[in-house]
Amino acid sequence: MMLQRRLFTAIVLPAVAATLAAPARAQTQSNQREAPAFAPVTAERLLNAEKEPHNWLMYSGNYNAQRFTRLDQIDRRNVAGLEIAWVYQLAVLDRAETTPLVVDGVMYITESPSTVIAVDAATGRPYWRYEHQLPDELIFCCGRNNRGVAVQGDRVIMSTLDAHLVALDARTGSVLWNTEVHEASSGYSKTAAPLVVGDRIFTGVAGGEYGIRGLVDAYDLETGALEWRFYTTPGPDHPDNRTWSGDSWRTGGAATWMTGSYDPELNLLYWGTGNPGPDYDGTVREGDNLYSDSVVALDADTGELEWYFQFTPHDIHDWDATQIPILADTTFDGEERRLMLFPNRNAFFYVLDRETGEFLLGTPYARQTWAEGLDENGRPILVPGMEPSPEGTVVAPAITGGSNWWSPTYSPRTGLIYVMAYDAETRYFIRPVEYEEGQSYRAGGGESPEPLENYVRAVRALEPQSGDLRWEFPVDSRTTSGLLSTAGNLVFGGTADGFFFALDAETGEELWHKNIGGRVHAGPMAFAVDGRQHVAIAAGNAIFAFALPE
Amino acid sequence: MMLQRRLFTAIVLPAVAATLAAPARAQTQSNQREAPAFAPVTAERLLNAEKEPHNWLMYSGNYNAQRFTRLDQIDRRNVAGLEIAWVYQLAVLDRAETTPLVVDGVMYITESPSTVIAVDAATGRPYWRYEHQLPDELIFCCGRNNRGVAVQGDRVIMSTLDAHLVALDARTGSVLWNTEVHEASSGYSKTAAPLVVGDRIFTGVAGGEYGIRGLVDAYDLETGALEWRFYTTPGPDHPDNRTWSGDSWRTGGAATWMTGSYDPELNLLYWGTGNPGPDYDGTVREGDNLYSDSVVALDADTGELEWYFQFTPHDIHDWDATQIPILADTTFDGEERRLMLFPNRNAFFYVLDRETGEFLLGTPYARQTWAEGLDENGRPILVPGMEPSPEGTVVAPAITGGSNWWSPTYSPRTGLIYVMAYDAETRYFIRPVEYEEGQSYRAGGGESPEPLENYVRAVRALEPQSGDLRWEFPVDSRTTSGLLSTAGNLVFGGTADGFFFALDAETGEELWHKNIGGRVHAGPMAFAVDGRQHVAIAAGNAIFAFALPE
Repeated sequence: MMLQRRLFTAIVLPAVAATLAAPARAQTQSNQREAPAFAPVTAERLLNAEKEPHNWLMYSGNYNAQRFTRLDQIDRRNVAGLEIAWVYQLAVLDRAETTPLVVDGVMYITESPSTVIAVDAATGRPYWRYEHQLPDELIFCCGRNNRGVAVQGDRVIMSTLDAHLVALDARTGSVLWNTEVHEASSGYSKTAAPLVVGDRIFTGVAGGEYGIRGLVDAYDLETGALEWRFYTTPGPDHPDNRTWSGDSWRTGGAATWMTGSYDPELNLLYWGTGNPGPDYDGTVREGDNLYSDSVVALDADTGELEWYFQFTPHDIHDWDATQIPILADTTFDGEERRLMLFPNRNAFFYVLDRETGEFLLGTPYARQTWAEGLDENGRPILVPGMEPSPEGTVVAPAITGGSNWWSPTYSPRTGLIYVMAYDAETRYFIRPVEYEEGQSYRAGGGESPEPLENYVRAVRALEPQSGDLRWEFPVDSRTTSGLLSTAGNLVFGGTADGFFFALDAETGEELWHKNIGGRVHAGPMAFAVDGRQHVAIAAGNAIFAFALPE
Repeated sequence: MMLQRRLFTAIVLPAVAATLAAPARAQTQSNQREAPAFAPVTAERLLNAEKEPHNWLMYSGNYNAQRFTRLDQIDRRNVAGLEIAWVYQLAVLDRAETTPLVVDGVMYITESPSTVIAVDAATGRPYWRYEHQLPDELIFCCGRNNRGVAVQGDRVIMSTLDAHLVALDARTGSVLWNTEVHEASSGYSKTAAPLVVGDRIFTGVAGGEYGIRGLVDAYDLETGALEWRFYTTPGPDHPDNRTWSGDSWRTGGAATWMTGSYDPELNLLYWGTGNPGPDYDGTVREGDNLYSDSVVALDADTGELEWYFQFTPHDIHDWDATQIPILADTTFDGEERRLMLFPNRNAFFYVLDRETGEFLLGTPYARQTWAEGLDENGRPILVPGMEPSPEGTVVAPAITGGSNWWSPTYSPRTGLIYVMAYDAETRYFIRPVEYEEGQSYRAGGGESPEPLENYVRAVRALEPQSGDLRWEFPVDSRTTSGLLSTAGNLVFGGTADGFFFALDAETGEELWHKNIGGRVHAGPMAFAVDGRQHVAIAAGNAIFAFALPE
């Protein structure tokens, strides 16, 4: 848009007036404008996301959730020259946990609490902004967060803090449909990016601290109608209901507050589940409390449970198993296997056969004091006396776990899995609690015996075949950053005190860092636009896109 | 600080662990630590600030307020490669109007409302943070802003929103003294950076919209004790009191809400004054209303008025004369003269003799409809019918002026003055109001006849000898950015939609820009650390430091 000129003098240099004026004037960041159209993101494109590495088409980059980019323009030799290409500043100070998506030059960012922003991925200039209206009173745990959207066709789909799924027109941000996944009044909320497969959208719920009942849902992409639902605490008609004493399954949590992964050949959807509720008092829910702290493998068409593996039976330390299952095809015991790699919050790293759920390996990757080890089925051999107590019981890992929801990454180049590991401990307390709808249902809590900075957090590179540590890179001990590995043989991550860094994926050597001034509490992603590779990260209340100098 | 390690395995690569770990772990951004000591910023150093261009020792860079840096490492040939060296994210979303200072590698940033942060100018990593405690209820106009600090000796001095001056230890941020400049209850506040000369600190007050009485104060740097006070509305014992009908001088405003400049050879302090109050109703304050909308020249030792020049006698459009007077020694009418250059909010550009206050030149630099011109003494020849009215009167410039407090810059290299000019208009209304202590005392307001994006804002390069426009560079029409000129022959500025840019100071050609994602509502500054020139700007809620690649 060229503006009318009413200059008081004729001395204007047209060549000058045309330069920055054009981009800077065409749009002010508060205005709405249409994003460019892109070819529909078909089911086929999502299945073959790795063939278009210039895009980042889903939360974890790919159905296998490896968070590995095939882009290799930024590599070990040139990464020292990486610079900030552009910055987008969010309008709120709440923690930014978003992983942006990029589709053919358009980036979709989520902002706390339930806002989507479309920006030009080449410049960071906004196209449109959609703010979901939330009820005045809302019950939810753990922050007004949103971790990102899903795309399919010409739609963008977002979870909302009041437990809705909203589908938006990708060009304009206008609402196509708005579905209530669950009434929000009793503590249900939604913060994770949905996952799209074919013409279905899969999603879970948060609220494990409020005695909700976890679920994985499938919705029709056209209409937003529910197609199937899988409850993560089975009802009385199911044999596994016996793993919950009395009616405790009704308020058993096992929330599904992160995103899943998917194997197209097996047509299996993998979803991690949260801790059983109440968090710290196991006496009101005797039994293993299936399928809490598990990964469940569901038939994507029907929601039928094909298999499950429970990492922490009868958890009393809040060790959700909600890290996104990483799917990798690699050798194990001399055979090529379809594996699932899972560095769990309970501080053990697991390798499963993802076709059958068979336990193949489990070794600690972070400090733990609660288990002597795992038996041949992967069941922990408990150390006695680790239960939360009225006076407090010190156990490692900490409540925040050996790691947490911030995603690890697997590089098929190096064959290593990289995880942000945390060697810490918590003094766990138990406090009696009665369930009351919409009230916190935790039955205890924890405190750190030492200042958090006395503990070690480190990027650890593990060998999936053995769980052995190849290298580690200690960082700011409060860091809660996800990781990205790249075909340029780099691993990107961030720190709590505002640094973003790149490591050599083979050796862990630090090759570059930049102070971006805000805590990294999200996962990095990569994209390319105009042939130029970028890496993006949310930090503080801004999104930073990095690229090599033009 | 190296941390205790409790690793579960011995496979640690020490070389790796030592890299980012050191800077990232030594400090988390919420902690306090001492800044390095620097040689005391003596009166002599402040007088010769231009001899240490790696530092930015006062709000406008120098006593002459030229906002020109002698650093020339970044120039027209290499500026296209300018990149973001580091980012510091502020903890609040309020408008960041700060111009940081840099003293020997330590940067002092202010954050809304009354907070100082010391950071490492080389990395952006914080040393300490001081938050001034404000009363719960506070009356002030125009935002919870702070524009920066002053330094002297080993002290940092800040204005606070509750109208105090606070002196801090530059190394630790601990309070040395805290002086009330004026009781805040009746609308007095302070947002501008103080100015230090010798062992005195000069400061003004904001609150013109509350019927306050403007003043310029001098305080003792050691003790914070008041040395002298100059009222900008003279009392009944002064002949100029006649320029206010009745008792209107008591509530006459003429606030002093920006920083002044200083001529060491003349020992004159120059301070711009705000509009008379109430803003839009002149009938309750007949007369010229001295010294509102003026620049006053005060003896720095005594506060005695040496001369004044009133730009807008009897203002009824809120055209504060609070841009910082720029002092430049250059030819005028064939003679070398001590000039003052003043692109005023009333849309005229003024050149005065700063020794005598003699009016030398006045020409419009932005669209104006209120004056036929200026007479030989610089007094405006009014166009009739421009008074605010109950039904609204459209006048140019807008309430925000042909420009506003965001500072212009003068380059002794090019001999040009650069100003962010605004060709707009306001529909001005008058509304009857009675003065009541602590209540808004404006008597009207305004609205824009057209959407703001229909107006033109542009960087304009003016010749001080004639007021002629050498070139202009139109930018986002809502831009409210200050400007910086450099010995590398560049002019830096920003836009409302988050761009920061560099222009060729000779031609106005745009040579570089970067999207930093936040509105620029502050002035850029320059510094060098470890021999590397930086340019810094506040944008959105972050501070960005730019440098060439290492």
